[in-house]
Amino acid sequence: MKLLITGGAGFLGARLARTLLSRGTLAGHRLDKVVLADRVAPPADLVADPRVEARVDALLAQAAALGHEGYDGVFHLASAVSAECEADFDLGLRSNLDSTRALLDGFRLAGRAPRLVFSSSIAVYGPDPAVPLPAIVTDITLAAPQTSYGTHKLICEHLIADYTRKGYIDGRAARLMTVTVRPGRPNGAASSFFSGIIREPLAGIESICPVAPDVSHPVASPARTIEGLIAVYEADRSAFNGRTAMNLPGLNVTVGEMLAALEAVAGKAARARVRFERDERIAEIVAGWPGGARAPRAARLGLEPDASFADIVRQYIDDCRQQPNADQTLKGLQP
Amino acid sequence: MKLLITGGAGFLGARLARTLLSRGTLAGHRLDKVVLADRVAPPADLVADPRVEARVDALLAQAAALGHEGYDGVFHLASAVSAECEADFDLGLRSNLDSTRALLDGFRLAGRAPRLVFSSSIAVYGPDPAVPLPAIVTDITLAAPQTSYGTHKLICEHLIADYTRKGYIDGRAARLMTVTVRPGRPNGAASSFFSGIIREPLAGIESICPVAPDVSHPVASPARTIEGLIAVYEADRSAFNGRTAMNLPGLNVTVGEMLAALEAVAGKAARARVRFERDERIAEIVAGWPGGARAPRAARLGLEPDASFADIVRQYIDDCRQQPNADQTLKGLQP
Repeated sequence: MKLLITGGAGFLGARLARTLLSRGTLAGHRLDKVVLADRVAPPADLVADPRVEARVDALLAQAAALGHEGYDGVFHLASAVSAECEADFDLGLRSNLDSTRALLDGFRLAGRAPRLVFSSSIAVYGPDPAVPLPAIVTDITLAAPQTSYGTHKLICEHLIADYTRKGYIDGRAARLMTVTVRPGRPNGAASSFFSGIIREPLAGIESICPVAPDVSHPVASPARTIEGLIAVYEADRSAFNGRTAMNLPGLNVTVGEMLAALEAVAGKAARARVRFERDERIAEIVAGWPGGARAPRAARLGLEPDASFADIVRQYIDDCRQQPNADQTLKGLQP
Repeated sequence: MKLLITGGAGFLGARLARTLLSRGTLAGHRLDKVVLADRVAPPADLVADPRVEARVDALLAQAAALGHEGYDGVFHLASAVSAECEADFDLGLRSNLDSTRALLDGFRLAGRAPRLVFSSSIAVYGPDPAVPLPAIVTDITLAAPQTSYGTHKLICEHLIADYTRKGYIDGRAARLMTVTVRPGRPNGAASSFFSGIIREPLAGIESICPVAPDVSHPVASPARTIEGLIAVYEADRSAFNGRTAMNLPGLNVTVGEMLAALEAVAGKAARARVRFERDERIAEIVAGWPGGARAPRAARLGLEPDASFADIVRQYIDDCRQQPNADQTLKGLQP
C-alpha cells in the first residue's frame, strides 16, 4: 500500500513513520511506499529507508497534486500550533483550514476515497459561559473552541465527516490529548510548557512553568499517541458508530503531580530546576482547556491512557538514551 | 448607517429589507443606505426606494469588494439550500463556505468590524448514532450535521465566533427554524414541502406530502423569523453569554397538525388537495432533523414562537392579499 503522512517530518509524523516502517504493515497491508509531506525534509534515518519519499513544500502548495498520487491511506498531521495561530491569523487559516480543504478536494477529485486519519485536538473544547465545560470532557461534550487553532480543528473534523458521508474519503478524526514529553526545543504551542517542565530539568536547564501547580490537564505519551493514531486508522468504520471524531485517551494529571513524578524518576535536583512564573497569555489559553478527559469509545478500540506520569517521564528518558545526544538531553538526570 | 443584506433579493432578504426600510432604523441608527447583494436583482419595490442599492453578482465574486464598502451592519443570509448542496457538492462549498469566508476576510482586512448576523439553521443538528438527538433540541444540544448544508452552516458559525473573538467583526449566528409558509414556487430545499402543503392547496393546486403525518418539526412564520433576525442584531453582545450562535424560537408541530390548521382556516376542500406520497430522499433528510426545539436564550430577548400554526396560515393569507396576484395565490381558499 501507498501511505501519505502530512507533517511527516515533524515530531509525531516522523515517529509514526518509524513505527509503521518497523511494523511493515498497516491494517493488514504491506507498506510499499510512505510519502512524508512537510515544509522541511524528514530526518535522515527516514530518508534512508528505500520505502520513504519526501515531498518538501508547504502543504497548501502541494495538496492538490498529492490528491492525485493514488494513496491508499493518509495520516493528515500537518498543522500550525495554537500560539502560532493566535499570533498570526492568516497563517492559521492557511495552514490549518485551507490546506486541509485543498487536500480533501484533491482526494475527492481523484476519486479513490483513501482512508484518512486527521489529528484533531482537545483544543476543540473551551469554556463557554453558556455551557460550563465539565471537569472531564468526553466524546459527546459540546465543542466550543476558544482559540483559532481549536476552531480550525473542529471545522476540519466536520469537513472530514461530510466528505466521508459523501464517500469521497474514509475519514476519521482522532482528538489528541496534549502530547508530552516532546523532545527538542519549545515550539509555539501554548501547551509547550507541559513538555518543557520535564525536558529542560532533565537536560540540566532551568524551566519556567507559566501556570499554577493545581492546573490539571489530560496528557498522553508520544508512544500512546502514535498507538492511538494507528488504532483509529485500523478500526472498522462501524467502530465509530456514526461519529468520525474520537477522543484519544489521556492521563489526567496536575502540573504538581507531573513535577512530583519528575522528582521520583529523576531526583530532587531535577525538580528544583522548575520555577513558577505566571504567563498571562499562556495561562489564559490553558484555562480554556479541559482539566481532564475520558475516552470510552477509544477504550473499546483497546486504547488506554498511560499508566502514570512517571511512566511518561521514563518513556522520554528511554527515548533520549537511544539518541546520540543523550549526554546533553539527560545531563540533569541523577545517575 | 450603511447596511448590507446578502441574499437581499431572496424571500427572507427582501422581507427583512422591507421591514427595516419601513422602520427606518436599526439598533437606534437611521438607515441611510441598504445594499442588497444577490445573484438576481431585488424586487422592484425595493429598487424604487432611494436608500436601496443592488449589487447583482454571485457573492463569492463580490465578497472581497463588499468588505471594503464601509458597512456598519450586515445580515448575511445568502445561501444555497439543503437539497441543492446534496445534489451539487461544489455548489455548496462555493456558495455556503467559500463565500462566507471571503466576506469575513473582506471585513477583517477592511478593519471596520461591522456587526454581522448570520442565518444559520436547525440543520446543524442531526441523528448521530453515538449521541441520539433529543426530541427537543436547545442551544446546547451537540451539533452533528448529517447534510452538507448543515455542515457548512455549523462551520460558518464557528468561523464567525472566531472572527468575533478576534474583534474582526461583531458576529452573531441565528439558527433559523424552518420558515413557513414561503410564497412562490417550491425551491430546492428538502424542507420545501412544509410550505408547499399549505401554499399549493390555498392556490387550488394539488400538493404531495413526502413524509408521514406524524413527522414533527419546529417551524416559524416569515414575520417571526424576521423579528428574530432583527432582535439578534439589536441584542447587546452580553446577551449571547459567550456563545455567538443562538436558536430562534420554533413552533413544534406535526404535519398532521399543519393540515388540520389548514382545514380550520381554509376549509375541507383545501385540506383535500394534499395527498401523502413518500419520497425516500426527502424523508431521509427530514428524518435527520429535530422533531422540535426550545429556545430559552431567544426568549430572554423577548422572542417567542408563533402562537399556533393556524396563525401562520393566516399570516400567509394576509400576505397574499396584499399582493396583486391574490386571486391566483388564494384561488383555493373558500370564501
